[in-house]
Amino acid sequence: METFAIGIDIGGTNTDIGIVSPTGKVIGRTNLPTQQYTKANEYLEAIEHAIRQLMAEHRIPVIGSIGIGAPNSNPFTGVMVANTPNMPMKEETPFRTFLSERFGVPVAVDNDANAAAYGEYIYGGARNMRHFIMITLGTGIGSGIVIDGRLLHGHTGTAGELGHTLVQPGGRTCGCGRKGCVEMYASAKGICLNYVEAARTQGHPLSDSEIATLTCRQVGEEALKGNPVARAAYRETAYWLGIAMANAAAFSAPEAFFLMGGPTRAGEALMEPLREYFNENLLFLYKGIDIRFSQLNDNEAALLGAAALGMAPDLTR
Amino acid sequence: METFAIGIDIGGTNTDIGIVSPTGKVIGRTNLPTQQYTKANEYLEAIEHAIRQLMAEHRIPVIGSIGIGAPNSNPFTGVMVANTPNMPMKEETPFRTFLSERFGVPVAVDNDANAAAYGEYIYGGARNMRHFIMITLGTGIGSGIVIDGRLLHGHTGTAGELGHTLVQPGGRTCGCGRKGCVEMYASAKGICLNYVEAARTQGHPLSDSEIATLTCRQVGEEALKGNPVARAAYRETAYWLGIAMANAAAFSAPEAFFLMGGPTRAGEALMEPLREYFNENLLFLYKGIDIRFSQLNDNEAALLGAAALGMAPDLTR
Repeated sequence: METFAIGIDIGGTNTDIGIVSPTGKVIGRTNLPTQQYTKANEYLEAIEHAIRQLMAEHRIPVIGSIGIGAPNSNPFTGVMVANTPNMPMKEETPFRTFLSERFGVPVAVDNDANAAAYGEYIYGGARNMRHFIMITLGTGIGSGIVIDGRLLHGHTGTAGELGHTLVQPGGRTCGCGRKGCVEMYASAKGICLNYVEAARTQGHPLSDSEIATLTCRQVGEEALKGNPVARAAYRETAYWLGIAMANAAAFSAPEAFFLMGGPTRAGEALMEPLREYFNENLLFLYKGIDIRFSQLNDNEAALLGAAALGMAPDLTR
Repeated sequence: METFAIGIDIGGTNTDIGIVSPTGKVIGRTNLPTQQYTKANEYLEAIEHAIRQLMAEHRIPVIGSIGIGAPNSNPFTGVMVANTPNMPMKEETPFRTFLSERFGVPVAVDNDANAAAYGEYIYGGARNMRHFIMITLGTGIGSGIVIDGRLLHGHTGTAGELGHTLVQPGGRTCGCGRKGCVEMYASAKGICLNYVEAARTQGHPLSDSEIATLTCRQVGEEALKGNPVARAAYRETAYWLGIAMANAAAFSAPEAFFLMGGPTRAGEALMEPLREYFNENLLFLYKGIDIRFSQLNDNEAALLGAAALGMAPDLTR
């Protein structure tokens, strides 16, 4: 597609909007303070206005598509559901019908992990791959699964929640109410829990106030410096994530996994033990599957992912 | 497709060949003693001859497709690999190129679990479903995953080995060399192991000779009669299979799971605890996914599955 694309990343604080060139360069961006819009219609009008301003400012008279990364959105209908947590508008927000009418272009809406996967596919390290899995590590763990060049949505549109696969039945209690999800071992939160445990095991238990203020970023920085407690925390992370990824490989036999998000800043302190445990737990049939970090710039990944969604044909049907 | 289809089920002992009507009736069948054929070419010629005889016998002048369920086969090339265990021919067997040349029709080749899935889709209980997962319980556990109406093959053609997802890391040692695959808890072999454990737990340990002669069929029959040891064995089976299925649901969000194979003869002794543990371990997003037994007759399922493969467009490309 040789035209410019609009990407929109919906968050509870900011609504980021960008124009992306055919080669994947964000040539202009703007944002709206999400909390100011308590009515879906006012919010959509504001988004339309912001897009038109951006286009005028950058002298782009025509766009080819609009893609939106939004929480709790239905990719089949292009709607963000009513009462989405952290969003001020309580009714549903029909992104697709509204924006496709106003701009006369395909509009696709999906969750942020699926947007990240498609961004990698269109603009990043997964170009030319037909089968891969993106794993987004953050407060939770999200995933976007690409099968034969298309995002996997399943019967309900909600496929691809690898963060909530059980790797340790009966283990740590997850926010979803179950026990033993990989999210509790390999998300930012899980990494902090691993650190607290490793500190205790190594004979340097943390105080309550140290535990309360511990961040995943700190653990990552310490791991990079070679701190043995942080290293052990990342090995624990890699162990459980490696098992979850080996299980995912037995499902869809991807060519590669991609990782994105804050915890990946630990670099080889994560990647080296992850490759080890992944391969140790991988069925022989799947040997050779690659694990890579996302090639997209942190600062632009969400916008690029959203813009890429607009180029996913199955999302605009 | 309104023409008749040929289905071929390749086993180390028998090669079953059937003609299937457009409505899914096996109107004629024959078989070859596989072990007599040590050369791939002689084997393929014999298959061709048997098909022509069947067609003549049943006065079917034209067939629309040929589908083959074969172990260690590559769905992309239609070849059964060299040195496939239990097969007498040591070289590779190029089913697709040979038979498509001889009959001038599409020929598809895939493993038996994928054939079972596609059989359910074309002739059984999964008609009109776009997303479902077939699980075949036998000596091992196989699976066939249908996504948007197509079999999932992945990058290498080997996708869909749910039997080798780890549910109990560090648990029972599997034939694949790893520890804790669901196959070791829910296959015929796993069910026997569960029975041995349950007998010990309930204070009636089995003797070595009882253990040596125990079969899954016996455990199923005892479970149906209400034997508490057999019931406990099936609950254990259901627990681990329920977790593996809940994890699979978080992957592809299917509309339903189907179960096939010997261990399903235990009926509700398997299904009732399986539904319980599956739903208990299922992420809330996926509530409502159905679990059903295959609707195909045991005696015809393999032939129907093979015949159905010939109608899978992505397998004949």
